[in-house]
Amino acid sequence: MVIDDPGVKAEVEAAFMSYEAALNANDVPVLEDLFRDDPRTIRYGIGENLYGMDAIRAFRRARSPQGLARTIHDTVITTYGRDTATAMTLFRREGVPGKIGRQSQTWLRFEDGWKVVAAHVSLIEG
Amino acid sequence: MVIDDPGVKAEVEAAFMSYEAALNANDVPVLEDLFRDDPRTIRYGIGENLYGMDAIRAFRRARSPQGLARTIHDTVITTYGRDTATAMTLFRREGVPGKIGRQSQTWLRFEDGWKVVAAHVSLIEG
Repeated sequence: MVIDDPGVKAEVEAAFMSYEAALNANDVPVLEDLFRDDPRTIRYGIGENLYGMDAIRAFRRARSPQGLARTIHDTVITTYGRDTATAMTLFRREGVPGKIGRQSQTWLRFEDGWKVVAAHVSLIEG
Repeated sequence: MVIDDPGVKAEVEAAFMSYEAALNANDVPVLEDLFRDDPRTIRYGIGENLYGMDAIRAFRRARSPQGLARTIHDTVITTYGRDTATAMTLFRREGVPGKIGRQSQTWLRFEDGWKVVAAHVSLIEG
């Protein structure tokens, strides 16, 4: 298994940055498109545990678009083979001083492109 | 790609339950063995962000063994193909009332077995 093949990594980095831009802009259609549309897709958010894409969609569509902008740092994307990647990043939001955000995602390549199948976002003191 | 092949899923479930038993017992050698020994392995813990297996080992070896026992629920393990899996679970600890724990792991099959390459643990109100 080739880890961090440059071509594969570039693909995942592009998908990850598309997601990040969509999150900052609260571009819900893009956010939804980058998660796998499946009942097995799971997202643990800052304050909610969402099992299945229906729950994830309902949450995103109801969420206030205010205050979502953030700055990421210590981002590490690692690819394993041609079809699997993890994306780990820390982040800060202006409106949430004194807290560090952590976001982890598992990305897999499907016929229609790279999709997140599992995600976890949390805040800690820092 | 076969999702949730029963044989593959049984393997990951066994690895996951070995990890859970080791966590409850604070069996550090087993916990370390089930994470991939690599600088790219990352674990966001309840209060710390650990980049690389050296940091993960140092944290585990210094941690108090008290109060680690927990009860898991809403556990979902999903396998993608023969070599990739996600394991998502919620948990509660007796000593931490009023909080729900969330743990997400990405497991990959290497020559020496299934290993966690990325993990994230957090607590929220609930």
